Amino acid sequence: MQIIITGGAGFLGARLARTLLASGRLSLAGAPAATISRITLVDRAAPPADLAADPRIAVAIGDLNEQLAAPSATFWREADAVFHLAAAVSGECEADFDLGMRSNFAATHGLLEKLRALGTRPLLVFASSLAVFGDSPEQPLPPVIEDHTLPTPQTSYGIQKFIGEQLVADYTRKGFVRGRSVRLMTVSVRPGRPNGAASGFFSGMIREPLAGIRAACPVPDETPVAIASPARTVEGILRAAEAGDAEWGPRTALNLPSLATTVGEMAAALERVAGKAATELLDRTPDPAIRRIVKTWPGRIETARARALGLAPDASFEAVIRDYVRENPDAVKLIIRA
Amino acid sequence: MQIIITGGAGFLGARLARTLLASGRLSLAGAPAATISRITLVDRAAPPADLAADPRIAVAIGDLNEQLAAPSATFWREADAVFHLAAAVSGECEADFDLGMRSNFAATHGLLEKLRALGTRPLLVFASSLAVFGDSPEQPLPPVIEDHTLPTPQTSYGIQKFIGEQLVADYTRKGFVRGRSVRLMTVSVRPGRPNGAASGFFSGMIREPLAGIRAACPVPDETPVAIASPARTVEGILRAAEAGDAEWGPRTALNLPSLATTVGEMAAALERVAGKAATELLDRTPDPAIRRIVKTWPGRIETARARALGLAPDASFEAVIRDYVRENPDAVKLIIRA
Repeated sequence: MQIIITGGAGFLGARLARTLLASGRLSLAGAPAATISRITLVDRAAPPADLAADPRIAVAIGDLNEQLAAPSATFWREADAVFHLAAAVSGECEADFDLGMRSNFAATHGLLEKLRALGTRPLLVFASSLAVFGDSPEQPLPPVIEDHTLPTPQTSYGIQKFIGEQLVADYTRKGFVRGRSVRLMTVSVRPGRPNGAASGFFSGMIREPLAGIRAACPVPDETPVAIASPARTVEGILRAAEAGDAEWGPRTALNLPSLATTVGEMAAALERVAGKAATELLDRTPDPAIRRIVKTWPGRIETARARALGLAPDASFEAVIRDYVRENPDAVKLIIRA
Repeated sequence: MQIIITGGAGFLGARLARTLLASGRLSLAGAPAATISRITLVDRAAPPADLAADPRIAVAIGDLNEQLAAPSATFWREADAVFHLAAAVSGECEADFDLGMRSNFAATHGLLEKLRALGTRPLLVFASSLAVFGDSPEQPLPPVIEDHTLPTPQTSYGIQKFIGEQLVADYTRKGFVRGRSVRLMTVSVRPGRPNGAASGFFSGMIREPLAGIRAACPVPDETPVAIASPARTVEGILRAAEAGDAEWGPRTALNLPSLATTVGEMAAALERVAGKAATELLDRTPDPAIRRIVKTWPGRIETARARALGLAPDASFEAVIRDYVRENPDAVKLIIRA
């Protein structure tokens, strides 16, 4: 089986690749599991060294739109499954409208056209986002988001992801691909470097203090957030590939499980794990631009479909932090409490 | 004031143009009404003679994508308001996927980019459709559609219209245009010739028998349908242009009012107006392709937002037929009952 991961050198893409390599096998849409012979990572950046060293990994470096157009990119036609994670992130898309339209709108459409032209009906998992839900004074979100709640995106990123969901649904209905869209929650704790996402501080406010570095926490304590750990997020993406058609259900995007918490509760969990030495590194200067984006996102999401697929949220944010500490020992400088 | 109507030679576009010319003035988004100096009809076909003869009418014949790209098409930059009605219709889009993607998806995106580039923030009314709502076994529609019901389109046309709504919402949020999307109901009775819409028979089953011609009625009597007359439809489109921002409310598309009826009730109304001579001309041979599309559309739609804007549905389908007879005396051959 040949697999493509767009955004495959990013943090989630690389984690997904490692999980797939460790298993060595994947079941697609309820079919018997098959051995993974190749995973092509399509990304503007080179993948981490451990992935590049695996003989089953192939690398296609470049912009997704260019990789879709390149005559030399022959890997597309071998694909049994594509995980489409590549995207410009929320803050970037709000600052640079054309970038978002190119990287999210045009690239997702281009990818679907590419897969349609194959005639092989590959499986496609599209990473959408909870950012399709947006609260505004003219159209307040309901207190709890459900699977059938109407998305009213309040960011270009959210609009572009929601349009991607619609395209995936119709290319699936027409039999051009076997598409499944999953809405990722705010992923925390992301390891590594900050990115341009407005949600980036939800990881930075934990990751940086644990490394002994000051970090921005630019929104009020009471700000709600729907969090999922990297492990739960990759689990949801894989489940979307593996579920049988009947089990998966409608072509509408599926909300992945999330832990409903708040910025204040996250800081409190950090303090329980690493003491006041950690929370004293938090810089509480408000950032109105980030606040404006983040406050439109929902905090409480009821995910009946995901639950029926056996997907559960993280048990607690403290457990999420302890997972991060265990998985990233080199990135932690503070003393961790038992 | 200069106005553009895409699809301006079509039945709805021409009726909208006549209504605007008769009034001579239009208020945009709550501003004082201004005199209409020019209406440019963009269409692949030439407009009806009465419109072509009006000195305020300009005509741009050609495909919308070509008219957007043509250096000679200087009318775009003078536009104060654009009514975007041009579209490939539902049956065409289901039969020819690429046609729909070009005529609905790409053209709507191209129009928004064109208007954005002007830097003048013109008003844009986008004609979406109740076809964004689609019923399927995996995801049944609720019995009554409301303004906040999640669209789950079951046709490419519905997907393309729903994507258009999202684009209009985000280009509006970003301040590139002042956009309003209205979802048109099934328009009946359309005068003139049949088109490629799967909903075409909802007009043909009335128009053709009144002209003494046999007509297809290819779905069962109990098939529900949400109908609006041409007059109510144009009224809704104009109201969308005129409403002030606060009055208009959220950027989500607005469901226009409709009369909830059934194919059987429509035939009964036809018989009350023109006797058995009319209904005996109905050919009840089922058409599975049309049935498959039409049965996914909702029949009952609750339109609180439209009502708050003063928009009401037609009083009865019999009244709709009598309006058609009065407006199209030359197209009626049967004897009409009082």
